[in-house]
Amino acid sequence: MAQAPDGVPVITRGDDLAARLTPALAALRWPDGSTGVAEGDVVVVASKVVAKAEGRLVAARDAAEREAVIAGETVRVVATRQRPDGTMLRIVENTQGLVMAAAGVDSSDVPAGTALLLPEDPDASARRLRRGLHARLGVRPGVLVTDTAGRPWRRGLVDMAIGAAGVRVLADHRGRRDAYGRELNVTVISLADEIAAAAELVKGKAAGRPVAVVRGMAHAVTLEDGDGAATLIRPPAEDMFRHGVDAD
Amino acid sequence: MAQAPDGVPVITRGDDLAARLTPALAALRWPDGSTGVAEGDVVVVASKVVAKAEGRLVAARDAAEREAVIAGETVRVVATRQRPDGTMLRIVENTQGLVMAAAGVDSSDVPAGTALLLPEDPDASARRLRRGLHARLGVRPGVLVTDTAGRPWRRGLVDMAIGAAGVRVLADHRGRRDAYGRELNVTVISLADEIAAAAELVKGKAAGRPVAVVRGMAHAVTLEDGDGAATLIRPPAEDMFRHGVDAD
Repeated sequence: MAQAPDGVPVITRGDDLAARLTPALAALRWPDGSTGVAEGDVVVVASKVVAKAEGRLVAARDAAEREAVIAGETVRVVATRQRPDGTMLRIVENTQGLVMAAAGVDSSDVPAGTALLLPEDPDASARRLRRGLHARLGVRPGVLVTDTAGRPWRRGLVDMAIGAAGVRVLADHRGRRDAYGRELNVTVISLADEIAAAAELVKGKAAGRPVAVVRGMAHAVTLEDGDGAATLIRPPAEDMFRHGVDAD
Repeated sequence: MAQAPDGVPVITRGDDLAARLTPALAALRWPDGSTGVAEGDVVVVASKVVAKAEGRLVAARDAAEREAVIAGETVRVVATRQRPDGTMLRIVENTQGLVMAAAGVDSSDVPAGTALLLPEDPDASARRLRRGLHARLGVRPGVLVTDTAGRPWRRGLVDMAIGAAGVRVLADHRGRRDAYGRELNVTVISLADEIAAAAELVKGKAAGRPVAVVRGMAHAVTLEDGDGAATLIRPPAEDMFRHGVDAD
């Protein structure tokens, strides 16, 4: 069960994100008659509003400046392809360790002449938001910071978790047995990415709903903030698709 | 909002899947007091039970036979890596066009000495199940057939849609404008994969719940069966990560 409240105000640099989100979150109404955010809920926030609150807008007045911004966020070029219009599409590993087009730099839904960097440390952003929501709402939901990304081999984008606090990001089923008594071979599920996807279904795109609450996730919410979404990044030694060249 | 009913019977070769699933689906109870499946719902079924109903269990008595089964489903080897135990992990494109480990051949939760192939044509399976559910339930939900797969760069597996009927698998936002009047650069969302992920959150793993119903998806459900999940497979010309060698 998930809901995305209307009425979230525009977020700008220096905003206290928890304070800005709290009224809309507290006003949520659930089918069982309850309101607001409860223990065991996960609050899922688009990285865009987190980055705006953190002042991550930078100048990018033309294509060359935008390219320079992307280069500054790039650690390694993983793959390149020429687009039909002659420009280059670059899939890169960025400073957060994420592999994304344009290093995750966002040029959509930002003021003309600017670009928006991802939060510098999305797990720290999630922990900070969680503390703020706890102080204001009196409950301690899990918090995810999400971004939208493409995948190899599959058309269409999906949301994924780039920051997490108080969420068991991986559900480890190793050791569980199947109905025939043998160990399961599907062993570790990315709960955080699945919650991010479920939240996107209710947030939608360009609808002014950058936050959603996913209910019924008590098994995924932890008292401790935990290791965060950085643990979802596959270590290079396990990664069969992180070829490419180090950026200058 | 999503629910996975208990009480789905064990599915075996030759079962009429719609008939076997109908009692558990019809018994679902929703927070608003309604029951069963409604128009605008999406019924999400694990490929495993679809494949079992379709008789896709084959003999695989030892590692060599299992390797031969996987080779038979392989069209192209995309990447290989030696596991710590010396065996080879192969990511391959299979006969359905999907890029997966072990070609999507399932050796978990099947009788000893067997392996389970994916449904031969998962979109056809979804259409057939949709027809059967419509006949029995009197409503025409969307249907997804899902499987669990790994991703490059990210730890943990997620569910994705490999078959679809009556589901708008891609939500195309091209042409939509942002708050500043410019065209959005996040343009095509994989609704079907996000619904698959949301369904996995309630189905869980090895819990005997191979089917879920996702409610509130009326915007994603279509009267026509549509082109199915095959449209989610990225065409080779757009794919930057389908290097590799043709299988023999």
